[in-house]
Amino acid sequence: MTDLFWPGDERADDLFGDHAWLTAMVEVEQAWLDALAGAGTAPAGTDLSGLVGPDDLAALAGAAEGTGNPVPTLVRLLRERAHGPGAAWVHRGLTSQDVVDTALMLCARDALDRVRDDMRHQIGSLAALVRAHRDTVMAARTLTQHAVPTTFGVKAAGWLGGTLDAAEAVGRIRTPVQIGGAAGTLSAAVDLVRGRGSADPTGAVSALVATVSDRLGLAPADPWHTARRTVTALGDALVGCTDVWGRTAADVATLSRPEIAEVTEPAAAGRGGSSTMPHKRNPVLSVLVRRAAIAAPPLASTLHLAAALAVDERPDGAWHTEWATLRTLARRTVVAGSQTRELLAGLTANTERMAATAAAARTDLTAEARAIAALTGADPADDTPLGVSDVLIDRVLDRAHRHLEADS
Amino acid sequence: MTDLFWPGDERADDLFGDHAWLTAMVEVEQAWLDALAGAGTAPAGTDLSGLVGPDDLAALAGAAEGTGNPVPTLVRLLRERAHGPGAAWVHRGLTSQDVVDTALMLCARDALDRVRDDMRHQIGSLAALVRAHRDTVMAARTLTQHAVPTTFGVKAAGWLGGTLDAAEAVGRIRTPVQIGGAAGTLSAAVDLVRGRGSADPTGAVSALVATVSDRLGLAPADPWHTARRTVTALGDALVGCTDVWGRTAADVATLSRPEIAEVTEPAAAGRGGSSTMPHKRNPVLSVLVRRAAIAAPPLASTLHLAAALAVDERPDGAWHTEWATLRTLARRTVVAGSQTRELLAGLTANTERMAATAAAARTDLTAEARAIAALTGADPADDTPLGVSDVLIDRVLDRAHRHLEADS
Amino acid sequence: MTDLFWPGDERADDLFGDHAWLTAMVEVEQAWLDALAGAGTAPAGTDLSGLVGPDDLAALAGAAEGTGNPVPTLVRLLRERAHGPGAAWVHRGLTSQDVVDTALMLCARDALDRVRDDMRHQIGSLAALVRAHRDTVMAARTLTQHAVPTTFGVKAAGWLGGTLDAAEAVGRIRTPVQIGGAAGTLSAAVDLVRGRGSADPTGAVSALVATVSDRLGLAPADPWHTARRTVTALGDALVGCTDVWGRTAADVATLSRPEIAEVTEPAAAGRGGSSTMPHKRNPVLSVLVRRAAIAAPPLASTLHLAAALAVDERPDGAWHTEWATLRTLARRTVVAGSQTRELLAGLTANTERMAATAAAARTDLTAEARAIAALTGADPADDTPLGVSDVLIDRVLDRAHRHLEADS
Amino acid sequence: MTDLFWPGDERADDLFGDHAWLTAMVEVEQAWLDALAGAGTAPAGTDLSGLVGPDDLAALAGAAEGTGNPVPTLVRLLRERAHGPGAAWVHRGLTSQDVVDTALMLCARDALDRVRDDMRHQIGSLAALVRAHRDTVMAARTLTQHAVPTTFGVKAAGWLGGTLDAAEAVGRIRTPVQIGGAAGTLSAAVDLVRGRGSADPTGAVSALVATVSDRLGLAPADPWHTARRTVTALGDALVGCTDVWGRTAADVATLSRPEIAEVTEPAAAGRGGSSTMPHKRNPVLSVLVRRAAIAAPPLASTLHLAAALAVDERPDGAWHTEWATLRTLARRTVVAGSQTRELLAGLTANTERMAATAAAARTDLTAEARAIAALTGADPADDTPLGVSDVLIDRVLDRAHRHLEADS
Repeated sequence: MTDLFWPGDERADDLFGDHAWLTAMVEVEQAWLDALAGAGTAPAGTDLSGLVGPDDLAALAGAAEGTGNPVPTLVRLLRERAHGPGAAWVHRGLTSQDVVDTALMLCARDALDRVRDDMRHQIGSLAALVRAHRDTVMAARTLTQHAVPTTFGVKAAGWLGGTLDAAEAVGRIRTPVQIGGAAGTLSAAVDLVRGRGSADPTGAVSALVATVSDRLGLAPADPWHTARRTVTALGDALVGCTDVWGRTAADVATLSRPEIAEVTEPAAAGRGGSSTMPHKRNPVLSVLVRRAAIAAPPLASTLHLAAALAVDERPDGAWHTEWATLRTLARRTVVAGSQTRELLAGLTANTERMAATAAAARTDLTAEARAIAALTGADPADDTPLGVSDVLIDRVLDRAHRHLEADS
Repeated sequence: MTDLFWPGDERADDLFGDHAWLTAMVEVEQAWLDALAGAGTAPAGTDLSGLVGPDDLAALAGAAEGTGNPVPTLVRLLRERAHGPGAAWVHRGLTSQDVVDTALMLCARDALDRVRDDMRHQIGSLAALVRAHRDTVMAARTLTQHAVPTTFGVKAAGWLGGTLDAAEAVGRIRTPVQIGGAAGTLSAAVDLVRGRGSADPTGAVSALVATVSDRLGLAPADPWHTARRTVTALGDALVGCTDVWGRTAADVATLSRPEIAEVTEPAAAGRGGSSTMPHKRNPVLSVLVRRAAIAAPPLASTLHLAAALAVDERPDGAWHTEWATLRTLARRTVVAGSQTRELLAGLTANTERMAATAAAARTDLTAEARAIAALTGADPADDTPLGVSDVLIDRVLDRAHRHLEADS
Repeated sequence: MTDLFWPGDERADDLFGDHAWLTAMVEVEQAWLDALAGAGTAPAGTDLSGLVGPDDLAALAGAAEGTGNPVPTLVRLLRERAHGPGAAWVHRGLTSQDVVDTALMLCARDALDRVRDDMRHQIGSLAALVRAHRDTVMAARTLTQHAVPTTFGVKAAGWLGGTLDAAEAVGRIRTPVQIGGAAGTLSAAVDLVRGRGSADPTGAVSALVATVSDRLGLAPADPWHTARRTVTALGDALVGCTDVWGRTAADVATLSRPEIAEVTEPAAAGRGGSSTMPHKRNPVLSVLVRRAAIAAPPLASTLHLAAALAVDERPDGAWHTEWATLRTLARRTVVAGSQTRELLAGLTANTERMAATAAAARTDLTAEARAIAALTGADPADDTPLGVSDVLIDRVLDRAHRHLEADS
Repeated sequence: MTDLFWPGDERADDLFGDHAWLTAMVEVEQAWLDALAGAGTAPAGTDLSGLVGPDDLAALAGAAEGTGNPVPTLVRLLRERAHGPGAAWVHRGLTSQDVVDTALMLCARDALDRVRDDMRHQIGSLAALVRAHRDTVMAARTLTQHAVPTTFGVKAAGWLGGTLDAAEAVGRIRTPVQIGGAAGTLSAAVDLVRGRGSADPTGAVSALVATVSDRLGLAPADPWHTARRTVTALGDALVGCTDVWGRTAADVATLSRPEIAEVTEPAAAGRGGSSTMPHKRNPVLSVLVRRAAIAAPPLASTLHLAAALAVDERPDGAWHTEWATLRTLARRTVVAGSQTRELLAGLTANTERMAATAAAARTDLTAEARAIAALTGADPADDTPLGVSDVLIDRVLDRAHRHLEADS
């Protein structure tokens, strides 16, 4: 997959792609059908794999408009194409939303895996930058102006701390199954197992849900058809990532300005050029990451709004808003995460330039220290006051170390 | 094109599709090259058609990440593949943003044409509903409760008035060319024509811009690289459409509730069904239109934010945010416009049900009239007070008539 | 009014303040009552002025929760406190929404007047900057990097063109009355005048609407209780202003960085200082304008969403979302407009620094020109290619001149 | 505090009010000063209480524009007005952002306490509704249409589960101190304690931070001047609340429609009336809660955007956007939480109406069950299939019980 309107989109491969989603939906139907068979409710041995594929996407999407979602037509195709007595049992006990939502969670899980992996690499690169530049003095800037001295290590430590925060939040995200039936009571499933002779239909259905969750590698959950925190929490976690990457990219873009020139993005063939200006070396990774950081928050906001409008036992539009919004948000995040990983892996600190600027601005940068000295009557101990920088750096490096250990 | 995540997406055909955008970019390059040739600056007769196509999209999108946009690679391909002495003149005097933005405007023009056409049909259908139901009494509802009597004609007149407002706003949108060169001064173009002997290079370049605008059917304009009202005004106009369609769909979805049942969406094969509940006839067009109305405003908001962050002579991320955002917003709008057109063309008013509810609620619906009568001491002249309904209806019908005349 | 959370808020005085809104609501009731009296429907001579005031605000706001808006309690107070036989006629024929919406439009008109006035001054200041710096060469920057030469006059011309665009859009905004009665049919008003003997009650009510519009200085309009383009168009126009101010402020903040130092914000006592760093001179006006430009788009987006959710004859929450959102958006805009006016009136271009940077970057800035020269075989005519800069500047200055003439 | 534009605002008392924030800022300065004194760095015994108050708010807000935030002027006033040798030590070692952010966290803590308390009551009321209506059959609705049977207990269990989710997320929010000095290195603080003779200035400063955190009842934290997850996570948690309340209110507003009439909002004097229609009983609490649910997501989105734009060591506008945005979001949430508490405490289920509608719709509601029966060949065991409803109810009631126990 590529997207001419979002350069770099192919970094997200087929994550949340039409085919990925379709495959996930079939996986859900298979898991449910197998669970029914395992419980003796449905005939065993029905294989849904390979029954639908890329060639069906256009027809499924087209028919999805009539029913509001792609599942009714998918179910019809699976029942028509499956062999054996189990065919008629496909989807029995489920509702469309069960399949749509659970398949979205499968897509989400894969996207989160990618984000987590990229963040691990980011954290490694950032930790290396922090270690390398613990003593690289540079000017801190507030409201665009020179403030006091800092080090590039402290700056990178700020990026690192924010990245760890975002990664931990991603790590807390659960991707649960959605299995509730038409109105979240699982009444059809209970009827089904009861009709097939179960002595404890309610217990049997609870076991089915557990089996399917386990099979799919998702968390078990009570039905959440109109309780959309599952989706909003996912959106918030993704935006939490683009926030910290956006902030990092804003710093890199600023420090890459030729008049400042304190950092340089990694070079690569074909990277940063212009259609007409041969000298150009644009900080294009930062630019593209900033793009995502601007676009992402309103998408997460749309997910919240959809959650707030989730009326009845299945909403009248709000639910339908979520799918493409979540898809877009997830892909934007994955792409930006990959770009940030590359950016940080190759970021160069121009230490001479940092030193030169800090030296030229020394009078301003030490104004606060002189004011303190005037108060205490003691001479400044150091003409580059760096406060607790080392403590902060040690702490964030330790945190990074523990994160990388725990997550490996 | 279909999108499993946005059922109905194929209604937008290839509008703002990757290939449509690529084709538009080549059209821009051709128009500029021909204008250069026409002015004697570049060799004549270079044909760019057919040089790039769908097979190039993946490579173009991939390379676009390195340069931040697809134009540098497109230019390289065109120069490599074009025949004759004009090949080297492709893109000379332009900048990437000129091509990207002007091609976006070509895509926008096509999308707006679709929206306008669908709105004409909506206006026709709505006018017919207004005329048919001028005297169809029903309960007006405020804060969900019965208020006073109204007619379905008045309700549809409200939808119609809002649709006319939105259509007029769409009609005011200009889609201009973007021709400014690297920093909006057209310096390369001026150098080019001067270098080829023009006695009045500034005037010659102004003539080139006029020629290209005319050729592309876009409005002439001074460079707007960082003056993004062109884009935000387009976004606002599109959201103005989804607003009124969303409001109409909210009414239809509400009035379609089985307990109210005052309107029915048009029936169609495969429309409104469920994967498990055979009796279902969901108001799925309204549901899908509401979906777009929820998703659209934050997209337009993103365009505004990008405009506000448009720093320097070309922004460091804000510009790049626009393309996919505008694409998505435009396609969502086109799809919703088409769905609303279909919805309104076949919407049925269940007049008996309207009458029955209004009759049953008569005491409440006429409470205000009794209060007025108590004040004036005059008996209510009519037990179904409808005020100036006829005047409002006549006025909006006249407006609809004039719109359809003017736009035909 | 001041707001510790939004420094500078007092620039908006009492615009859209609680008392301003209350005063406007009374003005609406008075205009309607006088119109009724003028038509012989109600007794003449009822004076509502001074009957409610700041001391009533808390009680009105408190009671507004019970009824969903402040009008029912306001009407009760006015009827209780007014003298003479007209007291019982206060508000007869209107609905709460009529008063709320029309009063909002009175507040909006006053806010727009302020915005327009500030924009006139901005336009004057910008035109002066453009004229003064037509030939002040500086580096143009794209994606943060040096691109080609431009002039500060061209840059300021871009700000000016954008400001003119926004000002023209503000100039197109209509602030209409809202007079529709409980369900937009004006049925109570028609009953009222009929009950008092009018032979042409429908015509009489239309005349009342015209009289009230005229008296209030608002545009006449058909009821727009659920047709909220009036509000969204206002929001869009306001955000159009913060967009261009935000973009200008982004440029100023960037060019104010000490490493670039090409512009300086106007100095003022107490401006730009820090609590601890005595040397600081922060570009605080730009910072605060950027703040508004970030906050404004989502507010306008909320107004669109409310419009899209405007169900029934009065919505079940969407309408209620608008008031505070519009108030906040309008005040933010007024404050930012005033700050931008001050910023532009005193902005200093550091021409030596611009020249020095452009000279140092000459090789890069002229790379495109050399490429063009290599193509044409002609030497660059000028080592500072500025293309059609003069034409652009003349055009925008002419536009500014016409705007200031027309609007004065 | 009341707000005519946001009826019910007074439910939030002075939370996040100007005076509350000012008081919190003084509390921060006092805690820091006391900590300095406790460490022997500053003279002991300086009392800042009562030095500034409501009469200073206008001057502080006015001066805040010049410096971009209110702290420099506050510090000046405190130093001028404090008695004794400690006066000169006020704020030494801190930066404005430390005081602004920490005081915001104090305001946030108080707002969260209110939200938590209201949620506890909501959870209690919901649990009672669930228990009371475990067997109250009603029609489930999907895409506005009748689906299968459910119970009002299950519906309320869905609201309860969502409320528990949101409450748990609120419970996870940390409100940390912000103590970092001008650039997040605490250099001035280190200089200060070193200048006063500390042998371990870095350790001493770490101890100061711990002391201040403890004193203020906030969490200790490394500086987060440009790591704004603290703020975005708070915003996300608040929107998570308005989401679930909005969804609940959407259900209540829908079920309150006179044609459905399955629930009734609690009655109260002056509640739900109209300015002109005496019979009206609007579900005004739901309406006002929906208002908040529509307005809240874009505010949280603005906080994310501000986080993503947090450049340098203190941002050039993004930070300044946060204060009023967070204030508004927090107050909206508190008000909606209080309204939802009241709504749920008095919500009436109209069980006869639920039963009557379910009975009338029996054929549709049992269509799925018949389809299952046709498949299994077994008669439906029950003509009101309710699946695992009891299990779901037991589970959520247990969860509610544990929440109320743990949080009490």
